[in-house]
Amino acid sequence: MSDFSILATDGKARRGALTTAHGVVNTPAFMPVGTAGTVKAMLPESVKATGAEILLGNTYHLMLRPGAERVAHFGGLHKFMNWPGPILTDSGGFQVMSLASLRKITEEGVAFRSHIDGAKIMLTPERSIEIQHLLDADITMCFDECTAFPATPEQAAHSMRLSMRWAERSRKAFQARPGYHLFGIVQGGIYRELREESAKTLTGIGFEGYAIGGLAIGEGQQEMFRVLDFTPDFLPLDRPRYLMGVGRPEDIVGAVARGIDMFDCVMPTRSGRTGLAFTRRGELNMRNARHTDDTGPIDPECSCPACRNYSRGYFHHLIKAKEMLGPMLLTWHNLHYYQELMQGLRAAIAAGTLDAFVADFHAQRAESESDRSAD
Amino acid sequence: MSDFSILATDGKARRGALTTAHGVVNTPAFMPVGTAGTVKAMLPESVKATGAEILLGNTYHLMLRPGAERVAHFGGLHKFMNWPGPILTDSGGFQVMSLASLRKITEEGVAFRSHIDGAKIMLTPERSIEIQHLLDADITMCFDECTAFPATPEQAAHSMRLSMRWAERSRKAFQARPGYHLFGIVQGGIYRELREESAKTLTGIGFEGYAIGGLAIGEGQQEMFRVLDFTPDFLPLDRPRYLMGVGRPEDIVGAVARGIDMFDCVMPTRSGRTGLAFTRRGELNMRNARHTDDTGPIDPECSCPACRNYSRGYFHHLIKAKEMLGPMLLTWHNLHYYQELMQGLRAAIAAGTLDAFVADFHAQRAESESDRSAD
Repeated sequence: MSDFSILATDGKARRGALTTAHGVVNTPAFMPVGTAGTVKAMLPESVKATGAEILLGNTYHLMLRPGAERVAHFGGLHKFMNWPGPILTDSGGFQVMSLASLRKITEEGVAFRSHIDGAKIMLTPERSIEIQHLLDADITMCFDECTAFPATPEQAAHSMRLSMRWAERSRKAFQARPGYHLFGIVQGGIYRELREESAKTLTGIGFEGYAIGGLAIGEGQQEMFRVLDFTPDFLPLDRPRYLMGVGRPEDIVGAVARGIDMFDCVMPTRSGRTGLAFTRRGELNMRNARHTDDTGPIDPECSCPACRNYSRGYFHHLIKAKEMLGPMLLTWHNLHYYQELMQGLRAAIAAGTLDAFVADFHAQRAESESDRSAD
Repeated sequence: MSDFSILATDGKARRGALTTAHGVVNTPAFMPVGTAGTVKAMLPESVKATGAEILLGNTYHLMLRPGAERVAHFGGLHKFMNWPGPILTDSGGFQVMSLASLRKITEEGVAFRSHIDGAKIMLTPERSIEIQHLLDADITMCFDECTAFPATPEQAAHSMRLSMRWAERSRKAFQARPGYHLFGIVQGGIYRELREESAKTLTGIGFEGYAIGGLAIGEGQQEMFRVLDFTPDFLPLDRPRYLMGVGRPEDIVGAVARGIDMFDCVMPTRSGRTGLAFTRRGELNMRNARHTDDTGPIDPECSCPACRNYSRGYFHHLIKAKEMLGPMLLTWHNLHYYQELMQGLRAAIAAGTLDAFVADFHAQRAESESDRSAD
């Protein structure tokens, strides 16, 4: 059984729909990140209003605070945070490695100390799956080790094979229920043979969807696209493909053309909090003095509340004055921009005009008035 | 001409309506504070949704950043901050004394240094009125010196008489236009004779409304109520009376019963940002550990989004995790509580049942489950 339908294709790109216990996700989809049970600076109804259909929650943060058992006591993450739609949770593996201290990886799992209170904690595939079950995730991710970049072929192979053994344990620990999905994560660094081996191992186990992990961690867009030129071909056509932690608008456009269906990234939300606004003509830094007296909107073609009701000069003021309304409205604008981009990509694939859409996307950015890149 | 209509009275309390250039304000009214061109952590449409009809803007903050001339360039404060309704601005006098450094008061005005960049600035009655004109305030306040507490009768008299001379200069500097009002400010500390002298001086000049200044600055509720027992009697019945910077719910209830029509205070917004929630049964501190596992709402009888959609445990989590959504929703709840209180007071005055309303207000608080006072 697959709850994933492919409604149209255009080259390698796919326009699909994934049914989950809490609703349907139209793909290609971008998932705003709700790290600690909230998409920072946004009411959930505002996130919904941007067009988002699915959120990402972070297992690592939620297991530490408020705790997975506590979220279950509140009826699961949907009820706790007032988001009735689909939720995907990561496995905690990536953030244990980037945020926790005194990490020790063994075959069993990862022992670490909480970055909040120093508590000693063990995270294993079984516990990660249990936590995601307690959170009531519609899409659960296998516990894996995100292979570092750079890594030698030997390091990447060693790391990937550990993740594959953990994927098998994750599959066994997962309780199958209608509308609840477990995704495997392809690792293997930048190496074609390792990506192929990983994909074959995972498809041998069998998952409802497949993520591509270990990218957008320093290898650069060109190298990422090279890996995305071959990795999706190792995966079954009829299952959703999720590129973890990506990315900038231009990364998403390039990845969709290479057959990716799902994305998540903190960029629109995090950038919004620092005063950066994404537009079809590039990124604007509202802190820049050139916006001080500008009575025009961030993007005259954008229909979000930030662009309909406020001037660039007002945002410049809010950011300078450190007023919360700046992050609130710029986060809204950026999520709206990302969702509009996804709607455009979905419509273009359905119409068979993705090439023209991509050309237009790059042409608009070439007329850029960008203040600086989002890096 | 007066744009103030008294629709009903109950004892000294009045149910009125004040017409301004940007709309009607039903009184008794509570004005949320939008210090720097935004009610902190709130979209203006959310402020409106709480029932607020008029905001307060701060001349001192706005003159320093973004600057009054700049706000005028953006079409005035209403347009700049996307609040189409009435706005009252203070004169800057109070905050110059509490926030600026190297202050020097002369007959001419106050010289000071900006707390933002140290710039040397002179604020006079004429400049204060000009700034409020540039901001396009519906209600402009006379420039005054808020007499300190405690003050000897001599100090209070000296300070009050300076404010009266400044009130006369403010009146002369103010450009009369339909729907735009200038309010005088009664000073005189805790001294009946000085309050009477100040009120007589102001009514001799003639203003569209009268504020009572120099209270809620350390004298305590009992002493404030004592001053409010006689001061409103010195003011014309047919003009609105505004008690500046007040206050806690119980202060407002007591002041309305003594004939006050308008209020402003940072308490609901500032408290919301620190995790404090006002309820009819007292103030709750959402940081308190007893809320950790509580699946119930802040106030089951409250219809605001914070109480309809979220648990106390969720707010405890948001505050502990320092998530912006906590201040956003708690500010909304507190403003909703304050506006519901004002609606209740207005309805009770109209029905002639204010005594019963006040008794019920205190009875509900006596069954308090308060975590701590809002002080």
